[in-house]
Amino acid sequence: MHSPNSIAPVHDRRDDLVARFRTVRAHSEELARPLGAEDQTVQSMPDCSPTKWHLAHVSWFFETFLLVPHLAGYEVQHPQFAYLFNSYYEAAGARHPRFERGLVTRPGVAEVAAYRSHVTQSMEHLFDVADADLWPTIAPLLDIGNHHEQQHQELILMDILNLFSRNPLRPAYAPYRAGLARAAGEARFFDYPGGIVDIGHDGAGFAYDNESPRHQALLRPFRIASRPVSNGEWMDFIGDGGYRRPDLWLADGWARVKSGEFVAPLYWEETGQGWEAMTLSGQHAVDREAPVCHVSYYEADAFARWAGKRLPTEAEWEVAARDLPVAGNFAGSGYLRPVAGGSAPDRPGQMYGDVWEWTQSPYSPYPGYRAAPGAIGEYNGKFMASQFVLRGGCCATPDGHVRATYRNFFYPHQRWPFAGLRLAEDA
Amino acid sequence: MHSPNSIAPVHDRRDDLVARFRTVRAHSEELARPLGAEDQTVQSMPDCSPTKWHLAHVSWFFETFLLVPHLAGYEVQHPQFAYLFNSYYEAAGARHPRFERGLVTRPGVAEVAAYRSHVTQSMEHLFDVADADLWPTIAPLLDIGNHHEQQHQELILMDILNLFSRNPLRPAYAPYRAGLARAAGEARFFDYPGGIVDIGHDGAGFAYDNESPRHQALLRPFRIASRPVSNGEWMDFIGDGGYRRPDLWLADGWARVKSGEFVAPLYWEETGQGWEAMTLSGQHAVDREAPVCHVSYYEADAFARWAGKRLPTEAEWEVAARDLPVAGNFAGSGYLRPVAGGSAPDRPGQMYGDVWEWTQSPYSPYPGYRAAPGAIGEYNGKFMASQFVLRGGCCATPDGHVRATYRNFFYPHQRWPFAGLRLAEDA
Amino acid sequence: MHSPNSIAPVHDRRDDLVARFRTVRAHSEELARPLGAEDQTVQSMPDCSPTKWHLAHVSWFFETFLLVPHLAGYEVQHPQFAYLFNSYYEAAGARHPRFERGLVTRPGVAEVAAYRSHVTQSMEHLFDVADADLWPTIAPLLDIGNHHEQQHQELILMDILNLFSRNPLRPAYAPYRAGLARAAGEARFFDYPGGIVDIGHDGAGFAYDNESPRHQALLRPFRIASRPVSNGEWMDFIGDGGYRRPDLWLADGWARVKSGEFVAPLYWEETGQGWEAMTLSGQHAVDREAPVCHVSYYEADAFARWAGKRLPTEAEWEVAARDLPVAGNFAGSGYLRPVAGGSAPDRPGQMYGDVWEWTQSPYSPYPGYRAAPGAIGEYNGKFMASQFVLRGGCCATPDGHVRATYRNFFYPHQRWPFAGLRLAEDA
Amino acid sequence: MHSPNSIAPVHDRRDDLVARFRTVRAHSEELARPLGAEDQTVQSMPDCSPTKWHLAHVSWFFETFLLVPHLAGYEVQHPQFAYLFNSYYEAAGARHPRFERGLVTRPGVAEVAAYRSHVTQSMEHLFDVADADLWPTIAPLLDIGNHHEQQHQELILMDILNLFSRNPLRPAYAPYRAGLARAAGEARFFDYPGGIVDIGHDGAGFAYDNESPRHQALLRPFRIASRPVSNGEWMDFIGDGGYRRPDLWLADGWARVKSGEFVAPLYWEETGQGWEAMTLSGQHAVDREAPVCHVSYYEADAFARWAGKRLPTEAEWEVAARDLPVAGNFAGSGYLRPVAGGSAPDRPGQMYGDVWEWTQSPYSPYPGYRAAPGAIGEYNGKFMASQFVLRGGCCATPDGHVRATYRNFFYPHQRWPFAGLRLAEDA
Repeated sequence: MHSPNSIAPVHDRRDDLVARFRTVRAHSEELARPLGAEDQTVQSMPDCSPTKWHLAHVSWFFETFLLVPHLAGYEVQHPQFAYLFNSYYEAAGARHPRFERGLVTRPGVAEVAAYRSHVTQSMEHLFDVADADLWPTIAPLLDIGNHHEQQHQELILMDILNLFSRNPLRPAYAPYRAGLARAAGEARFFDYPGGIVDIGHDGAGFAYDNESPRHQALLRPFRIASRPVSNGEWMDFIGDGGYRRPDLWLADGWARVKSGEFVAPLYWEETGQGWEAMTLSGQHAVDREAPVCHVSYYEADAFARWAGKRLPTEAEWEVAARDLPVAGNFAGSGYLRPVAGGSAPDRPGQMYGDVWEWTQSPYSPYPGYRAAPGAIGEYNGKFMASQFVLRGGCCATPDGHVRATYRNFFYPHQRWPFAGLRLAEDA
Repeated sequence: MHSPNSIAPVHDRRDDLVARFRTVRAHSEELARPLGAEDQTVQSMPDCSPTKWHLAHVSWFFETFLLVPHLAGYEVQHPQFAYLFNSYYEAAGARHPRFERGLVTRPGVAEVAAYRSHVTQSMEHLFDVADADLWPTIAPLLDIGNHHEQQHQELILMDILNLFSRNPLRPAYAPYRAGLARAAGEARFFDYPGGIVDIGHDGAGFAYDNESPRHQALLRPFRIASRPVSNGEWMDFIGDGGYRRPDLWLADGWARVKSGEFVAPLYWEETGQGWEAMTLSGQHAVDREAPVCHVSYYEADAFARWAGKRLPTEAEWEVAARDLPVAGNFAGSGYLRPVAGGSAPDRPGQMYGDVWEWTQSPYSPYPGYRAAPGAIGEYNGKFMASQFVLRGGCCATPDGHVRATYRNFFYPHQRWPFAGLRLAEDA
Repeated sequence: MHSPNSIAPVHDRRDDLVARFRTVRAHSEELARPLGAEDQTVQSMPDCSPTKWHLAHVSWFFETFLLVPHLAGYEVQHPQFAYLFNSYYEAAGARHPRFERGLVTRPGVAEVAAYRSHVTQSMEHLFDVADADLWPTIAPLLDIGNHHEQQHQELILMDILNLFSRNPLRPAYAPYRAGLARAAGEARFFDYPGGIVDIGHDGAGFAYDNESPRHQALLRPFRIASRPVSNGEWMDFIGDGGYRRPDLWLADGWARVKSGEFVAPLYWEETGQGWEAMTLSGQHAVDREAPVCHVSYYEADAFARWAGKRLPTEAEWEVAARDLPVAGNFAGSGYLRPVAGGSAPDRPGQMYGDVWEWTQSPYSPYPGYRAAPGAIGEYNGKFMASQFVLRGGCCATPDGHVRATYRNFFYPHQRWPFAGLRLAEDA
Repeated sequence: MHSPNSIAPVHDRRDDLVARFRTVRAHSEELARPLGAEDQTVQSMPDCSPTKWHLAHVSWFFETFLLVPHLAGYEVQHPQFAYLFNSYYEAAGARHPRFERGLVTRPGVAEVAAYRSHVTQSMEHLFDVADADLWPTIAPLLDIGNHHEQQHQELILMDILNLFSRNPLRPAYAPYRAGLARAAGEARFFDYPGGIVDIGHDGAGFAYDNESPRHQALLRPFRIASRPVSNGEWMDFIGDGGYRRPDLWLADGWARVKSGEFVAPLYWEETGQGWEAMTLSGQHAVDREAPVCHVSYYEADAFARWAGKRLPTEAEWEVAARDLPVAGNFAGSGYLRPVAGGSAPDRPGQMYGDVWEWTQSPYSPYPGYRAAPGAIGEYNGKFMASQFVLRGGCCATPDGHVRATYRNFFYPHQRWPFAGLRLAEDA
């Protein structure tokens, strides 16, 4: 996971950007509310960060890229925070080792809250004093900062689930909201023609640098499934020896199967009552009808091979998704887990929300891509090796954050994202 | 570090034991007061535990060994706590892996406080209802429980210092109390005759099982220094290439020097202003006159070889200490670091308090030693391999906890205890 | 790296296939001749294998896929060899852990030679008895077996260089053959138009399954350099802080720089006389005019960014190479290291031989790719994640082994292949 | 394990020392004869070394400590050998990392043989030219060199067994010599009085520095078993849950049990036909009557606790052994494994040979011990932490090498020595 870059002109109105800033900032604090100081402090594995680190880091971002350079007279109250809360911007100076974030108990949650408040108020002051000359400079940075904080809102939920899963008491972050009693039904496949298509961001509205430049891609006719793979189908895969047949697996994935790391999706536990899974609402029986979640790329790929299908490319996914409304089970729904969706007869369902969908596309630069200069340019480009692209957002993604061209990316072994899959095949 | 066992008859009066229980329990809570919930939750390395784990574990000890078996009608409110807060008593059931203690954010500090309160009140109830028949059974368990909690009070301070040392902001646990302006002076050596001596606990007052049985040991005439080795002497050792000369070192210690692990005592940092050291009161210049602290056995042994001396055996130390008053710079003094001591013309100084003193004696059973049966017997005996004995208590040891026969023990590479050394030689 | 699959019809004449078998087998033994039994036994790192393992493994391949199923009456003399010498064919049964290959001192080189001889003679027997009905079945397997053994011939040289580089005496595998005194000269760039191109194997002659299916790809106009990057240019990169500037690096590569793993190409050593490099002919001064070698993808990518260029895609490389003769500094030249090449005014030089050239293309299946069923299908497809494609062969590749469509692949951190790079840019 | 130091006057006659030199040198070459170049090159784990390393290292020892300083005109032919073949003498200069010894394939066995021959001949030349003034200087070094080479003869056998145990083909180093059909019989216990005893070397004949100074020790009355613990008794221990009961184990040992490292003695394998064990003569059924071997200190200690006994101290062992003839199943017997012994009615049997016997004594300096100055002083003293003393020699020890005061030492987890145990108890 990752960060801002584009520094393209912004089309949104000043009022809208400021309003979004306020909403985003308030929402982060809302997310932390159910968490005690203890919960906000611990880092359960090197991939994760403490909640209070996330809360401080997104503030450091506004401070570093907006307040320090653009608000006259702004003073950094805690110079050491730049060291503690820089995530990976090498150009922005030395930083605290990522895997030691959980050792820093001070500043505590109260001091982080005060820091947030100071940054938020200073931003409001910047909004007050920024004249028409300055605004075009800061607007794109504000835009990125807003989207950046939204990304960390999803990470907070991912990381808290991982932390709570390591607690033998299996605590709940949020109350359990029951889903509608829907059956997943048999998956159907929709046909798409091949040919040359335009892929990537067209310049309207915000996008990260890695969605550009918009470019032509050559597709062959393909078909894509009406819904993500379900938990019930995954149980069938397990029951059919999916984790015992080397012919289904990429070699690196099979090594993790043999080492005992992969035996079922992350957070699944086999109990006397069948499969249960840890969720943000505690541990519950796995719902056969809901999309499978917390699987690695290796597992997704093995499943597709078992099913006689394949994963879509990211271009295929984008073609199938671009005309659909960006709506679905995002974090605002309150489920905070994938749930069974309804289906439409004429188009794929659940393309957005529920689970990030692994594609077979390695995360590479689009033709002609260049990272922006300076620290802001470290946002996305420097991760373009050994990862795969995921599309569509998930049940922990803030509403309004994703779009058809949005490229998320993770290493193929990572399972703590809310990641699932959708099948495709050649037409 | 370790635990209770003896189950010998107790000579203290009932009132004294109960009073000590109350004092000890209150003191643990006092120790935690300067710490936020964040500070009490994190585990900085596998050797350490979170403060709130210590606070809960010592309560679990009273619950498991006193309340459950001896208080009629006592109900365990949180059965999972037995899993979470058992330290290493294999006979008492399964337990949470030690190195994952820092992942358990819930129960939080408030719940642990409630658990402590419940246990303390239930103990008071046990005191009320225990008749003269029951008392002789529970008195030795109460006695052990009190001393056990005191041991964890020292661990809380050791572990918090380690945690805070990993924080780039170098926070302070307690305010800095300045020491008296004393010079360490040249060390003198006191002579002791050889012959057969009685070593170990004589049965008066509390002792752990590893201090028994009292037995005869054969000593050769020896001499022991008037004070521990000072920081100034350690700087001389560094300046003279102490960490660069393999001839001074045991092979296992030299391997750690070459790997870069040992370059100076733990918590020392060379700055533009010379050596500084992290303490429980933040980072300060190293005081040349105070005893050196946070050195491993390997370093202590190398220093002694450099100085042309040796470490004392634990029997030699005990002979030199047994007629001295058990007084010194313990935790109650408020320094929470070793400080320069005054000297007496006729006897070694600072034998108690300031720093635990490494002896050259491997931690082995005394002749005729047998561990007590059952879980309580796991207190000390099962650690009797590969560790060395330290004597005398330190600046983080609760007042009244140690005695001349007290045997502490650590692995030779461990440096987070408040451990230093005193030189000896053959007479 | 490696292996057989296609099982497509073979166009070569029977005599040619048999002749190639004999040549290949003899050449493997030739390669081992300069090596003592000691040299052939040791595994210097998990990526490498002992020479005698390679010699036995390629024989096991012929035994398992040709002799056992197709030669009536063939008896496996050493059934355990199937366990010892299976590389990674899960479908072919259990196998010895890869990283323990260096622990197996018996069978020794003499027994392996006898095993080879037995397999070779049995193959000759199979050639004698195979009738026209059987031949179409075994011909493609023989074809693959020949190419498979050639791949291991290159691995033998790679692995011996790695082994000898770990020996403080820096032994030589082969005598040093001096190169011609050529200057690399300034690199020029050749232009290629964009458009839809056909990529992949067209069916004439042998190819691995991963070169198929032939398919259309959409290219944008591009330019490609006249020669690979030279050692002299790499020294300039080092001198300009190439290994000290995080802005040049992918994040995963920079982590290896910071850990001290990457400071210069593998096998380079800075001495009082400047840079030297270990080669198969011992350690020698680095030749500024020769192509740089033994660099990782991360380093190649960082160099390209420093130079203001980029790496080519594999399709671009293939377009630039497909009309050039497959000739260059392969193993048969006797240099066994990259050397400065001559240049032609009208086309890129050294596309074949000298160094494998990293492309920016992740190693992925071509559209429509399906692995062959059974063990033979494990050859290439199961490695299609997290690796990058390299093209063109190198100074350790057997003559006649590569072609324009040949796809080699390694993980981006691996440096023991003879891998370098050629720059490209958008036109 | 390991090496020379004492530099005490030598009482043996010149002729005897020279004769022993010739015998020892020839015997090392005899030991290597059944081994191929492949076998002599590989290092199966960091604790082990290749045979050819041992053969070269003992020669380096004579070269470094005798030839270079004392033979006028001696020239070191291969200066790099000092780097490759120094084991751990820091004072003798830089050295090759121990765990990389197996990467050095050159010099090969032939070159090592030539080096040995050169050193042996030069030593003979030294014997010829050494006059009566020089002899007293070189005699103790020669004496140590002889014993040092004998120690490495045992290591060669230990290390080859470990290497061959990692080969799935389970090769044999030597033919199997059947033992006599003897029953171990019930162990009896012999009584010894307590009191002050003299322990350590009395100065007659060769001894290592760690056997000195002779000193007084105070013993309590004790009893010691008539024979080592047998394989049959160990099977009973396993059958009774010995590896499943934490109450029997030291904490560090139990951690290894839980991790799966300890499930039976090293080299034991449970097959359809019961327990088999790998030996220097290949894999054979475990003989219930023979002493158990290849157990760690932790296992020996757990067994003793299970049996209601304890391990002897090294002083107790020495008292029981000092009046017995130094005879038993040493390497010269040709068994190369422990075998069932006969018994005598009046004294313990098999005190010498068969298996090294773990004592409960940590390996510490005797009172008054000082290491010799210079490199030769690194022989024993620098290992005096975290190890335990073993006594009596084993079936792989050269005949004539041990004595009653001989102190061998290993870490408590090490199992590749031929180590077993004998029970003791308080009288």
